[in-house]
Amino acid sequence: MRAFVWPIRIYYEDTDAGGVVYHANYVKFFERARTEMLRAIGVSQQKLLLQKAGFIVPQLSIDFRKPARLDDELTVVSKIVQVKRASLVFCQELVNPVGDVLCQAKVKVAYVCSDKIKPQAIPQAIIQELTQGEC
Amino acid sequence: MRAFVWPIRIYYEDTDAGGVVYHANYVKFFERARTEMLRAIGVSQQKLLLQKAGFIVPQLSIDFRKPARLDDELTVVSKIVQVKRASLVFCQELVNPVGDVLCQAKVKVAYVCSDKIKPQAIPQAIIQELTQGEC
Amino acid sequence: MRAFVWPIRIYYEDTDAGGVVYHANYVKFFERARTEMLRAIGVSQQKLLLQKAGFIVPQLSIDFRKPARLDDELTVVSKIVQVKRASLVFCQELVNPVGDVLCQAKVKVAYVCSDKIKPQAIPQAIIQELTQGEC
Amino acid sequence: MRAFVWPIRIYYEDTDAGGVVYHANYVKFFERARTEMLRAIGVSQQKLLLQKAGFIVPQLSIDFRKPARLDDELTVVSKIVQVKRASLVFCQELVNPVGDVLCQAKVKVAYVCSDKIKPQAIPQAIIQELTQGEC
Repeated sequence: MRAFVWPIRIYYEDTDAGGVVYHANYVKFFERARTEMLRAIGVSQQKLLLQKAGFIVPQLSIDFRKPARLDDELTVVSKIVQVKRASLVFCQELVNPVGDVLCQAKVKVAYVCSDKIKPQAIPQAIIQELTQGEC
Repeated sequence: MRAFVWPIRIYYEDTDAGGVVYHANYVKFFERARTEMLRAIGVSQQKLLLQKAGFIVPQLSIDFRKPARLDDELTVVSKIVQVKRASLVFCQELVNPVGDVLCQAKVKVAYVCSDKIKPQAIPQAIIQELTQGEC
Repeated sequence: MRAFVWPIRIYYEDTDAGGVVYHANYVKFFERARTEMLRAIGVSQQKLLLQKAGFIVPQLSIDFRKPARLDDELTVVSKIVQVKRASLVFCQELVNPVGDVLCQAKVKVAYVCSDKIKPQAIPQAIIQELTQGEC
Repeated sequence: MRAFVWPIRIYYEDTDAGGVVYHANYVKFFERARTEMLRAIGVSQQKLLLQKAGFIVPQLSIDFRKPARLDDELTVVSKIVQVKRASLVFCQELVNPVGDVLCQAKVKVAYVCSDKIKPQAIPQAIIQELTQGEC
């Protein structure tokens, strides 16, 4: 599967008094990019939500290398590096226009139903798109 | 009804690259204070939520006078200034330790059921607490 | 001056347990749109910030009419309705694809220097762009 | 050094349309708790900030085990498990009233000066407090 690329612009809301992006906000950028990657293969999280299903994050790790700043025009590059019956692992990088990796995340997502706890098998149609699709 | 007082501490997450609190975050502080005011009179928003009911904000206005900064220890002073069948109006001020009003909000809240749109009559028990209670 | 149009997509980060967008987050959407409107006429907030200047919001009011939901693809329509020596007033609407106004804001912004309190005259170049420009 | 305990209350702002706390917001809770732990040993981040110094997060990993929900009254238990010349490692757990660990984080923080990139030696006074202090 090819990498999925999604642009991120840094606004005041993303920064903190240190003059750079607040560390928790990178977690949001990566989530936006995963959402768009799923959307690109036809998965609507709103539709899943109405069925009381969805993807949750049981585990993530992030290396922060260089700070992002107000007005920066960045890119999240996302790859799915593991597809299991009930979970996926994404590798995601936030990259600036000259190719520096500002931060790098490894994010495990699991498919859950209404209780938001117990992982379920990911619907076959999604698995198929993910393993065959060209997002 | 007496004023309800709730403390707010400013963290990095609340600030922006301008070195002060990001303006949208004051809206959150006022919401926390309203939540605690309702809790003080026995209204659980989680319990309302499980009944698919809750309070929404149809209207707010805020005057920002002085910026709050990292580590500030502030107080939200909240008063209910209007009680109607299906809505309440709160006046709320964010105050620093020497009594300066940093910002002031007027927030209308309406009681809604599952559709999140059409206001409903506020349950009689809540109205009673609000008009008789001493929070 | 013509209206400035900016797209907003709703992500999980924007929603709350009520199933709709959390009210404070609309304030962020309007700020993003003002930032992009300023960028469109050549004003870089990062450049202003490095000069310890910038626009702050001394006053805003918002009418919330219909809730936005996860995955919604919306548009902020922004107009500057007042240009004064040291402040601007924006009227901004968040609109869905069929033209419903979900919420409407009136936001006053003031130009400040390093102290983040006292309004200063807006630089003449900015005023000129705002009053003559076609953003 | 003993564990440092800090209470966290869940508000609407912390939740998402899935009905639980949005995963990025746990990162904020952990940061609040570290801030309060530093404050407890006399470190003011605002004072550091005025000297253009501060702690940044070069690395974090989080295991999410059980979701937190609106109105939950939780506790962050923080321990410093490694003190180096220019960095600290915190182990932090978010715990509910019956002792379940909802999520667990390992967070590395580094001391930086104005450039927000290159780690510096942590001031000796802070190291001393951290290794001798009883917070």
